Amino acid sequence: MFETAEIGRKVSREEYEAQEPNVRLRLLELQQELRSSDFPVIIVFAGVDGAGKGSTVNLLNEWMDPRWLVAHAYSEPSQEEAERPEFWRYWRDLPPKGRIGIFLSAWYSRPVLDRVYGKITSSQFDEKLERIRAFERALAVNGALILKFWMHLGKDAQKKRLKSLEKDPLNAWQVTETDWRHWRMYDDFVAAAELTLMRTSTGRAPWHIVEGYDARYRSLAIGDLILQGIRKQISDSVAKRQMAAQLARDKAPKPVEEAPKGKRKKAETKAASTNTEQDLESTVTGLPTILSTLDMDQKLERKDYKTSLKKYQGKLNLLHRQAAEKGISALMVFEGSDAAGKGGAIRRCTRALDARRYEVIPFAAPSDEERAHHYLWRFWRHLGRAGRVTIFDRSWYGRVLVERVEGFASQDEWMRAYAEINDFEAQLVEHGIVLLKYWLQITPEEQLTRFKAREETPYKRWKLTDEDWRNREKWPLYESAVNDMVERTSTRVAPWTLVEGNDKLFARLKVIKTLVERLEKAVKKKK
Amino acid sequence: MFETAEIGRKVSREEYEAQEPNVRLRLLELQQELRSSDFPVIIVFAGVDGAGKGSTVNLLNEWMDPRWLVAHAYSEPSQEEAERPEFWRYWRDLPPKGRIGIFLSAWYSRPVLDRVYGKITSSQFDEKLERIRAFERALAVNGALILKFWMHLGKDAQKKRLKSLEKDPLNAWQVTETDWRHWRMYDDFVAAAELTLMRTSTGRAPWHIVEGYDARYRSLAIGDLILQGIRKQISDSVAKRQMAAQLARDKAPKPVEEAPKGKRKKAETKAASTNTEQDLESTVTGLPTILSTLDMDQKLERKDYKTSLKKYQGKLNLLHRQAAEKGISALMVFEGSDAAGKGGAIRRCTRALDARRYEVIPFAAPSDEERAHHYLWRFWRHLGRAGRVTIFDRSWYGRVLVERVEGFASQDEWMRAYAEINDFEAQLVEHGIVLLKYWLQITPEEQLTRFKAREETPYKRWKLTDEDWRNREKWPLYESAVNDMVERTSTRVAPWTLVEGNDKLFARLKVIKTLVERLEKAVKKKK
Repeated sequence: MFETAEIGRKVSREEYEAQEPNVRLRLLELQQELRSSDFPVIIVFAGVDGAGKGSTVNLLNEWMDPRWLVAHAYSEPSQEEAERPEFWRYWRDLPPKGRIGIFLSAWYSRPVLDRVYGKITSSQFDEKLERIRAFERALAVNGALILKFWMHLGKDAQKKRLKSLEKDPLNAWQVTETDWRHWRMYDDFVAAAELTLMRTSTGRAPWHIVEGYDARYRSLAIGDLILQGIRKQISDSVAKRQMAAQLARDKAPKPVEEAPKGKRKKAETKAASTNTEQDLESTVTGLPTILSTLDMDQKLERKDYKTSLKKYQGKLNLLHRQAAEKGISALMVFEGSDAAGKGGAIRRCTRALDARRYEVIPFAAPSDEERAHHYLWRFWRHLGRAGRVTIFDRSWYGRVLVERVEGFASQDEWMRAYAEINDFEAQLVEHGIVLLKYWLQITPEEQLTRFKAREETPYKRWKLTDEDWRNREKWPLYESAVNDMVERTSTRVAPWTLVEGNDKLFARLKVIKTLVERLEKAVKKKK
Repeated sequence: MFETAEIGRKVSREEYEAQEPNVRLRLLELQQELRSSDFPVIIVFAGVDGAGKGSTVNLLNEWMDPRWLVAHAYSEPSQEEAERPEFWRYWRDLPPKGRIGIFLSAWYSRPVLDRVYGKITSSQFDEKLERIRAFERALAVNGALILKFWMHLGKDAQKKRLKSLEKDPLNAWQVTETDWRHWRMYDDFVAAAELTLMRTSTGRAPWHIVEGYDARYRSLAIGDLILQGIRKQISDSVAKRQMAAQLARDKAPKPVEEAPKGKRKKAETKAASTNTEQDLESTVTGLPTILSTLDMDQKLERKDYKTSLKKYQGKLNLLHRQAAEKGISALMVFEGSDAAGKGGAIRRCTRALDARRYEVIPFAAPSDEERAHHYLWRFWRHLGRAGRVTIFDRSWYGRVLVERVEGFASQDEWMRAYAEINDFEAQLVEHGIVLLKYWLQITPEEQLTRFKAREETPYKRWKLTDEDWRNREKWPLYESAVNDMVERTSTRVAPWTLVEGNDKLFARLKVIKTLVERLEKAVKKKK
């Protein structure tokens, strides 16, 4: 879940200076617009010490109009506060409609700390998270916009950051013995954090994980996300009010004169149509994603490939039989750009498997019957029996990839899909299924080469469709969809394997090697 | 929570025969309409053994067209099923759009049994319930209509029912040793059931508790609820599609010819306006509610009243000081019909309290500031400090009473309010607050007498407004709102006290007596 925030994202000074004034200006404009809107904005900061939570709050205070923005930070409850239920102080500080409230060390702070220090059991922790979910749900469903930022640093990055703060006389006070103690408990924190994010990242109040190491990157990223969030909510709420008004008019007795209606209609058309994809467009451009950090030049010599492939296929064959005996199933999910080499990678695995014990299921557009059900239904129905390997060529991730990019799913639908998918996968893993998720990535240049080669090879030409060319034009949209997907669904129980696919041999070997390693672990574990 | 289903609701044979044909006919009609709708209907039956789950499913099969209706009942998983995650078989059996699926002994069965038999801990139980919630949420948010019926019997009623089944040669096979074992574990079942209902009764998939003793009553009640549910969902989904179409047209380039638009418009007007209160109207009329079973003739002689009142006021005064010392707060919530005597009952309590340690807070229409927040905000802000008594004259229950009846809150809003309120109250009780909720009930005749008396007494005239007269006309709507409120929010930790208010003396004494008893318990419990 946090790998997307440990890749060293940076923004250069020049780029920052080019983009920052624009972000500030838009934030100020939007704040004015927000004042007459009928919802409050609740911004929550949480995350790793030293990842810039405090500085970001300061920056937002500087960027925006402080009259319509209040930041709240919490420590131990005062006596007044302790005499009431825990959430009393948060309710008290909620912003009214049209205002922004920023919350630091708020409702997430105590549960995570208590869990890491072992003061509460895992089920008590669950209960606290459930309470938070109910709290945020009640607010969001009532119209509040909730933006939650989890500021993250890798373990080494955090160490570096704390050391550099200590060296700086102006900032040394910020680093306390507690910070270092927490750093030594890093892994416990991350485990608690992952659970927190999984349980509380809902369609209505999703978390955004922000890499905190580079101040320029995190400032632009957060500014941009706030802009997108508020802009979307304003246009949604305008559209909703118009619909309600329309409905009320439709219900009302028909007016006799039709004259003013034409005019009104026009005004609505304009406002309603603001609620389009453009709302989701970034103000900030060119921020790095997890895909942009992959080393796409990795290669494998054919000779080495052949030797290694033989070795892993041999292992896989043995493991496969052992797994079958023990009733261990595996489910391999393949996603990737067009022509990324999914089919080839799949075949290198299946050659080592017993044909009676595996199944490759390609998913294209759903059938009529499938369309009459929930989108997860068709994946549930194809789950294999115990001891089999099931290979899904494309999968439920279509919901947050093609359906998102092509607009087949609404934003609400794909946003809540992350939680639905995490829940679905948790059920698979709990049942003992070995779940592998591969994203095969190629560069646009490599894709072009492959497309051209397909055009020129008669027996491959059928593979290339007009749609492939159209998809190519949406490369940046897919890239950001993949980034969000990995950020929100790469969990400790069901991690993504990102495969650098420009070199087919390298990619195929990475795929089978990962399968062998995961199966080996599962077979060893199960007596 | 179950008191509304232990009051011996009955429907006479004549009444049943008068209403049943109409229910059947409407169900059949609606089923046809449903076939072209874009959502599936999922009906879940659960509850106490002998409360008529099986018979009701049979009846629905008989009433409706079996081609568009499938009933599924589950027992121990088959081998095929056991080889997949637990929910696989439920996913497999979900109905497609336009159809009805009935689920018996399905996803609720195992968790409740396992909990009662102590096979899972309370936190594992919570996890199972959370999984169910996620499952139902994913379906509902995707459009499915989920109707859940909890068939209930009181402990004695269940015993009677099992015995009468045993006597009947045709039905004796239905009663097994397991049924009797479960009956002996009745209290454990009810505790697990209450938790189940609280956790899984959401705005989107609410439970309906149905008293199962009388077959005629439960059949009409369930038929009626199914009718209401489907009718509402159809009209919502029609309205939604029209809005989307409208929006799409508004966004599209303006068509030149305006001629066909007028026609289209008219058709929409008709369909959109079907989504009104009438959708929620019952097909079945005159079913008993919890209020209709109160013994409104209860009375107290003035002499007895005086003696008892003095006694309880004395006790209260002492308890109040003990509670203050121990930091125990009490929160009394008063709701009731107009002129039901809330003020008088409150004053009989406050006279025994230390003026520095109690506060009476009347809630009328919210202020501007309050309106700019979540509806619970204004109640949170008035929570008292430790050791005080806070009295709310009207409360958050306005959401599910006046706001529901007057249409100030949408159905979605008041439906989800039950869960929000239960969660809110759970936080109060967990914090140690003694929470008392009083519903003061008078008959319409008594209200009329009191209104007239107010008109005639100069110093009381101000109390009577036009609104009071208007509210009177909505008596049946309020009655059904109160019934739902008690059914859904009377929990073991925060039960409702229903006060028969026709005799003021009787009512006042019941109020103070209940307060004394609850405080006494809390003071004794806290060291």
